[in-house]
Amino acid sequence: MVEYTVRVHKKGKVTEKKVESGTNLLSFFRKNSIDVSAPCGGRGTCGKCKVRVNGLVKEPSNKEKSLLGNKSLDKGYRLACYNKIASDIDVYLDKSEDKANILTEVSEREIQFEPLIAKRFESLDVPGAEDQRSDVERLAQLFKKPKAINSLNVLRALPENLREDNFKVTLVCMEKKVIGIEAGDTTGSIYGIAIDIGTTTIAAYLYDMVTGKKVDVYSVLNPQKKYGADVISRIAYTSDNQGGLDEMNNEIIQGINDIIKHFETNNGISKGSIYSVVFVGNTTMLHFLMKVPAQNIAVSPFIPVTTSLHKFKADELGIEISPYGYALILPSVSAYVGADTVAAVMSCGMYRDDRITLLIDIGTNGEIVLGNSKWMYACSTAAGPAFEGANIRNGVGGVIGAIDSVRFSPDFGYSTIGKENAIGICGSGIVDAIAGMISEGIIDETGRIAGREESEVYRSEEMRNRLIDLDGKNSFLIEKSEQCNADTDIAITQKDVRELQNAKAAIAAGIAVLIKQAGIDIEDIENVYLAGGFGSYINIESALKIGLIPDGLRGKIKSVGNAAGAGAIEALLSSKALEKAEEIRNSIKYIELSALDEFNELYIECMQFD
Amino acid sequence: MVEYTVRVHKKGKVTEKKVESGTNLLSFFRKNSIDVSAPCGGRGTCGKCKVRVNGLVKEPSNKEKSLLGNKSLDKGYRLACYNKIASDIDVYLDKSEDKANILTEVSEREIQFEPLIAKRFESLDVPGAEDQRSDVERLAQLFKKPKAINSLNVLRALPENLREDNFKVTLVCMEKKVIGIEAGDTTGSIYGIAIDIGTTTIAAYLYDMVTGKKVDVYSVLNPQKKYGADVISRIAYTSDNQGGLDEMNNEIIQGINDIIKHFETNNGISKGSIYSVVFVGNTTMLHFLMKVPAQNIAVSPFIPVTTSLHKFKADELGIEISPYGYALILPSVSAYVGADTVAAVMSCGMYRDDRITLLIDIGTNGEIVLGNSKWMYACSTAAGPAFEGANIRNGVGGVIGAIDSVRFSPDFGYSTIGKENAIGICGSGIVDAIAGMISEGIIDETGRIAGREESEVYRSEEMRNRLIDLDGKNSFLIEKSEQCNADTDIAITQKDVRELQNAKAAIAAGIAVLIKQAGIDIEDIENVYLAGGFGSYINIESALKIGLIPDGLRGKIKSVGNAAGAGAIEALLSSKALEKAEEIRNSIKYIELSALDEFNELYIECMQFD
Repeated sequence: MVEYTVRVHKKGKVTEKKVESGTNLLSFFRKNSIDVSAPCGGRGTCGKCKVRVNGLVKEPSNKEKSLLGNKSLDKGYRLACYNKIASDIDVYLDKSEDKANILTEVSEREIQFEPLIAKRFESLDVPGAEDQRSDVERLAQLFKKPKAINSLNVLRALPENLREDNFKVTLVCMEKKVIGIEAGDTTGSIYGIAIDIGTTTIAAYLYDMVTGKKVDVYSVLNPQKKYGADVISRIAYTSDNQGGLDEMNNEIIQGINDIIKHFETNNGISKGSIYSVVFVGNTTMLHFLMKVPAQNIAVSPFIPVTTSLHKFKADELGIEISPYGYALILPSVSAYVGADTVAAVMSCGMYRDDRITLLIDIGTNGEIVLGNSKWMYACSTAAGPAFEGANIRNGVGGVIGAIDSVRFSPDFGYSTIGKENAIGICGSGIVDAIAGMISEGIIDETGRIAGREESEVYRSEEMRNRLIDLDGKNSFLIEKSEQCNADTDIAITQKDVRELQNAKAAIAAGIAVLIKQAGIDIEDIENVYLAGGFGSYINIESALKIGLIPDGLRGKIKSVGNAAGAGAIEALLSSKALEKAEEIRNSIKYIELSALDEFNELYIECMQFD
Repeated sequence: MVEYTVRVHKKGKVTEKKVESGTNLLSFFRKNSIDVSAPCGGRGTCGKCKVRVNGLVKEPSNKEKSLLGNKSLDKGYRLACYNKIASDIDVYLDKSEDKANILTEVSEREIQFEPLIAKRFESLDVPGAEDQRSDVERLAQLFKKPKAINSLNVLRALPENLREDNFKVTLVCMEKKVIGIEAGDTTGSIYGIAIDIGTTTIAAYLYDMVTGKKVDVYSVLNPQKKYGADVISRIAYTSDNQGGLDEMNNEIIQGINDIIKHFETNNGISKGSIYSVVFVGNTTMLHFLMKVPAQNIAVSPFIPVTTSLHKFKADELGIEISPYGYALILPSVSAYVGADTVAAVMSCGMYRDDRITLLIDIGTNGEIVLGNSKWMYACSTAAGPAFEGANIRNGVGGVIGAIDSVRFSPDFGYSTIGKENAIGICGSGIVDAIAGMISEGIIDETGRIAGREESEVYRSEEMRNRLIDLDGKNSFLIEKSEQCNADTDIAITQKDVRELQNAKAAIAAGIAVLIKQAGIDIEDIENVYLAGGFGSYINIESALKIGLIPDGLRGKIKSVGNAAGAGAIEALLSSKALEKAEEIRNSIKYIELSALDEFNELYIECMQFD
């Protein structure tokens, strides 16, 4: 067995590790618990597992080059998932000291590290007969235009904390206001969390707010799931049940507090040293977070209570961080274009790009934003849960054993997540399967699956054999069940195709409406960003084939990973990003599709495969 | 029996009442439940029972004239307590509709009724497909520069309250911020309370904030009394006992909530219609109100946690008014010059008078302010509780049966509160007694009470008989006990004289220090205001005689009643008064007497009677 040495350079230290020749670099990182982002799971699509390496034998492939971009290539960056270790190498994990790097855009960009909440250490004058100022006035002298300390928590802690270390204190400040006070110098310990509350998943990012560096990432299933998979059923629960909103709020607050506990134990920090939590999420989730009634989001004309930027004391919301801590909730655009979309627009940078960008975040709802630095339009379209594997005969989420890709040539085959036996098919697999069936002529342009008898002339023997009958309907077999039982075969049914047609038509029609509203041509769009998990895993060629994204955008499509989470992190690290989020929200014009006859026409048109 | 007719004119209506000839006008008002202020209880000292009258036979006496001032005389005002009904008369009780009258100054002055918290009724646009603004944005349109609604209470109530009466709503606004929301038009119902938290008594004033008129007044003993009579012993309790501050805070909050309940039942209003409570009080009481540790107030160099103006949501403090309500705490000057003094300075108007005024508020501490519109000095001096009847052999508070005045000529006599049998002697009685003893030569300039044998030559028989021996010390008998038992005789002992000497010396030396600090002569002072209960009841001649107030100020002294409470009311009714309070507080220079050798010298000097 040939072994090589990997020298890992981090924070000025070098660690040497022996590794078997041919080991994939990303696998090496995972095995050694070296935190490198890889939202696509190492499939080579997201371009995020970027790392500076010296000594690799192989030159970057064209695919690797295109994902990295020239700037990163010039700096010596490579994508870990694309490279095997076939020599001794040096890996550099250092980031610059006072800038945080957010890797959602194709070219790396830097955020000024300037958090809203920060600490400062001060040695105050000690009072005496000649200086009888109150404790509050003693603090106020530090500020040019002092704002009144109007926090009971601070006033109550002030006298003891000032005197514990002879008037040497650490102030926790927000917008030139003292929001917290601690004895002595505690400036070395301040953390913040960015949280993206999705209908399905809550993703949280713990940051060290001294250095601006990521400390930990954790995600949990949204505990509200038991009240329904989508926002509408959860809103219905709050309308139909006395105390339903309280329950929904409790669930989410409990989930967040569990995440905080995890961060405490996993990183040996105290929740008392966490002073800020920035939230993004869809509008309904943010209402539930604040325990604000969301009923009117569910019924026409879909009016949320608030879409504004909010700052609450964390303890007002029941979030267990420092008693001085604040919860910041980013602004939303409308009932169905939430703060997650605003954050994604911010992190992908389209709002400051003169070129026209199309941002698509596909979930149960597809949020679509089209625009540039001068104008932006957004809509939300009810794609339904087909892309998440729901309402599909053998549909599953992105779990171990899910078929996540299907190929038809050179021979038919598929892959599963975790390389386990197939247990079902997830969104990206469904899109691949249907795209392949179209290419093979198994599905016609109306979406009808051909019967075995119709396909004799133009179909290979193997393909013909996959055309089966399930409950009297034509279906396409992907994997025969080991039990030789049709009920447990994995197949795409006629109904599955219809579900997918509805879903892709909703997105495609939404895109078409925005293009029309903006009065541009499809060629004017220069970048298409796919945000979110599905956007990272989907095979772009398949998406084009089924007409989810118009063919005219071919070659311009990139996935940007969890752009919403990245935007939340940006707001956590930079108070300017908070202002930016408000500006972005104000400059997005929301288009209500349900009010447009045109949308229904386009929707029916987009049902076709062509 | 001769009867006359009193025609009472109020709010455009006239009511006729028959009354026996010779009835005192103030007694007539009391009998007929007509609310006329008389803080001195009708003793003719406070000048507050001012009312516009036509038809009185007698011309005003010089005393009445001097208390009323020319402006009021010209307008037809008279003092009720000075006049008997000896003809048919017309009494006018109307006040102007949009101005509130506060009667603490000698000449009546008007306050612009412009409360910080006010209601407005609005008919908002009803949302539709063409107008999908959030509930918050729908409200924000009403304001030129909308501030974010950052109250969870408001957000949570917003959707239901907007829709209950088809987007007709009442907003509760503070500083152009929406702090409350109610369905329909509730602008007719809004109340506010001004509260003066004294060490001994909590006095509360309920105001109708639609009209700016007083609805009710109520006062209770400060329930903290069981922890000690003075602030120092209460602070000690919080330092010495785990949870002591919580107890102290609970007591005061409970007391305030009891007052609110009383206002509810007594006036048939709901606490939900009370939106503001303005607090004044000494610095320690305000710390306890906020549950802020007060320990450092009790020890040199006497540093309070805060002397700032504070605005808290009432529910943060546990005060049970509207969930939208606010508690406003007026600013203090120092540890021992509290918001009550700031409020008194505001209501007596000295801060905007070019003439120099001396304001004296005598309690356990005597707060003294000297100055005019250009400069002000303040000090606090530990008078001790002698003026409140404490530490005096037969001392009692101002209760029924307390001897409240003593006269030596033409014959010796006294009066009691409620004209009941004497049970003891209160502050004003003690001052009268000692002043008389000085005049009669019973006390020499050092404060020594003469023995019966020394006084043979120059003393009347009656006076000589009052010189008794109590426990081997010379004493002066005021009233022999019915039980013929020396222990229950009411007398002034040598020790009582010493207590009073200490108390009056503290005040007099404080006054002298301020005059010196200001670099003025005593003749430069044009007005002396006595604030607080004791200031209203004290016989000014006696106060001059014992040297509590320098003789050079004779003829310039007036009592101004509860000037602190009046200032709190001013702040409740006028948001400008809140700003004014801050300005006043900033322009008062605090003099720490304990740091001045000069004070001790003056104190010893002022012990003398001369």
